[in-house]
Amino acid sequence: MKVIVDMMGSDHGTEATVPGVLRFIEEYPDVQVFCVGNEDELKPLEGKATIIHAEDVVPMDAGALQVLRLRNSSMNVAIATLLEEEANAIVSAGSTGGFLSATTVKLKLIPGIERAAITAPFPTAIKGKKMVVLDIGASNENTPEQLIQFAKMGSIYAEKVLDIENPNVYLLSNGAEDDKGTPEVVEANKRLREMDFPGFKGNIEGREALDGHVDVLVSGGFAGNIFLKTSEGIAKFFGNSLKKMFTKNLSTKIGYLHVRKGLKEIQDTFDYKSTGGAMLLGINTVAVKAHGNSDAYTFYSALKVAYKMAKQDVVAKIKEGFVEDGS
Amino acid sequence: MKVIVDMMGSDHGTEATVPGVLRFIEEYPDVQVFCVGNEDELKPLEGKATIIHAEDVVPMDAGALQVLRLRNSSMNVAIATLLEEEANAIVSAGSTGGFLSATTVKLKLIPGIERAAITAPFPTAIKGKKMVVLDIGASNENTPEQLIQFAKMGSIYAEKVLDIENPNVYLLSNGAEDDKGTPEVVEANKRLREMDFPGFKGNIEGREALDGHVDVLVSGGFAGNIFLKTSEGIAKFFGNSLKKMFTKNLSTKIGYLHVRKGLKEIQDTFDYKSTGGAMLLGINTVAVKAHGNSDAYTFYSALKVAYKMAKQDVVAKIKEGFVEDGS
Repeated sequence: MKVIVDMMGSDHGTEATVPGVLRFIEEYPDVQVFCVGNEDELKPLEGKATIIHAEDVVPMDAGALQVLRLRNSSMNVAIATLLEEEANAIVSAGSTGGFLSATTVKLKLIPGIERAAITAPFPTAIKGKKMVVLDIGASNENTPEQLIQFAKMGSIYAEKVLDIENPNVYLLSNGAEDDKGTPEVVEANKRLREMDFPGFKGNIEGREALDGHVDVLVSGGFAGNIFLKTSEGIAKFFGNSLKKMFTKNLSTKIGYLHVRKGLKEIQDTFDYKSTGGAMLLGINTVAVKAHGNSDAYTFYSALKVAYKMAKQDVVAKIKEGFVEDGS
Repeated sequence: MKVIVDMMGSDHGTEATVPGVLRFIEEYPDVQVFCVGNEDELKPLEGKATIIHAEDVVPMDAGALQVLRLRNSSMNVAIATLLEEEANAIVSAGSTGGFLSATTVKLKLIPGIERAAITAPFPTAIKGKKMVVLDIGASNENTPEQLIQFAKMGSIYAEKVLDIENPNVYLLSNGAEDDKGTPEVVEANKRLREMDFPGFKGNIEGREALDGHVDVLVSGGFAGNIFLKTSEGIAKFFGNSLKKMFTKNLSTKIGYLHVRKGLKEIQDTFDYKSTGGAMLLGINTVAVKAHGNSDAYTFYSALKVAYKMAKQDVVAKIKEGFVEDGS
């Protein structure tokens, strides 16, 4: 297996990506890793990975056109390397929009898919149970047809990667009734019902979506992003509040000792970062976007996600799914 | 002051609304209260409020047309009573969609306003600091012009009712940059910038919106509803998790005793229900929608919200705001 890594463009740069890659190589010695970026900063990887120099770095806020113009950027060189090497996966912690545009343009979408969807396994109220939420930010507007495609890609991902048999599928909306939502959501609901989409259960509100009984949550990119970011915001709020509460004085610190284990469990249940990255589903290769503020561990986790997706042949499985029923 | 109350149609019916009204009357003896509903169930209010019998009840899931057809429903009779009595405010815990449609059709919108917005003061990470979020569910789609109108109504509400001087205003989006969001959000951002809208700061993500520095958060109804419901969902998740953690065994129960006060504070900071209801801003009268699952206290709180809005003459102030600059 060959994995291409864009080493530049994240908040902590090579300080996070180099140790992340080193750990990954140690654990998966069978994988050929190609590291693209400033060769001076990649010295620690010499002899362990193939180092490919790239002059430029795509800025975090780069727009689609800007990325494509930066031909010698680590992101573009990484994509070119993937094509040359016919590699299995690509990972980047750089600009999400940039990575999405560049992979869409240069690596193409899977035939039949109109738009890539960014997705990530999402924690739920049930410990260890994850759900797939898509799209969480690739698009600002989506047609009913695209929502249906997301439902299909999400189902395949849930089944093949998360090992969920007959995953259930819900549309994120502002009410549980079939007629609730934007015109696009209402139409997607209607068509999913008409086609007897496997596992489709109808609409669900943000309040119930996290209860743990949802396997695939389908949303347009704008609302999906609001869902993701709001969850993170409230989780952050509770995290900070609890920390402040327990560190207030000696008595509260003693209180902490009594529930330390339970708190750790809650934290683990609701940890957004443990998955390491988001997948760009619909792209004609495994493409994983690591968090922009990845540390070494998070970046290593993103590499593992890419490895697992390549190993499970997720792209081929999505392709099959879209060929089978000719949509 | 005259307040009209639709006593029927909520989850707990008159078991919640009757004691809620009794408490309100006790505390505000200067207000004339008109209670509309099944007269048998309203007997405890005899001599304290004007009781008006209404045969029917609007079901919780009623659509717009169904509500208008139910002429003898408590909701419609309450609205008719408001018009007859030239009353100052109306409160209902019945169907949100129904209440919105019926008030829009029969009480009309304030001239210049295209769509009513449902809004509620929203808790933030700063104790006691609330922000105004609108629209949280009146519409499924909104034009840039409507978003701008929400910004205006929200600012007036924040200034006149929440006593926030020069409130700042943000657009909820999937990125902080001006070019992020749906085409409607991007266009609204552009126009708010062009018109130098007072206090307009730009876009904000769901993650930062709760930090406590936002006074007015403007959103289309669909995304606003996702924002609200997702927040509630995560808050519920943390609430349940903490409860389970602290009640696990004797040791954790002792832990609880050490932080009881702090936990109460967190709970109070993040209490969605304390405000009692949501306002229908843009309607040509004070219209408050109490929670569908209101208990007596919540319903009483909704009545207080209506009282305060009427006392502060919020509707007149919004009217002035829309006349002043002719939009």
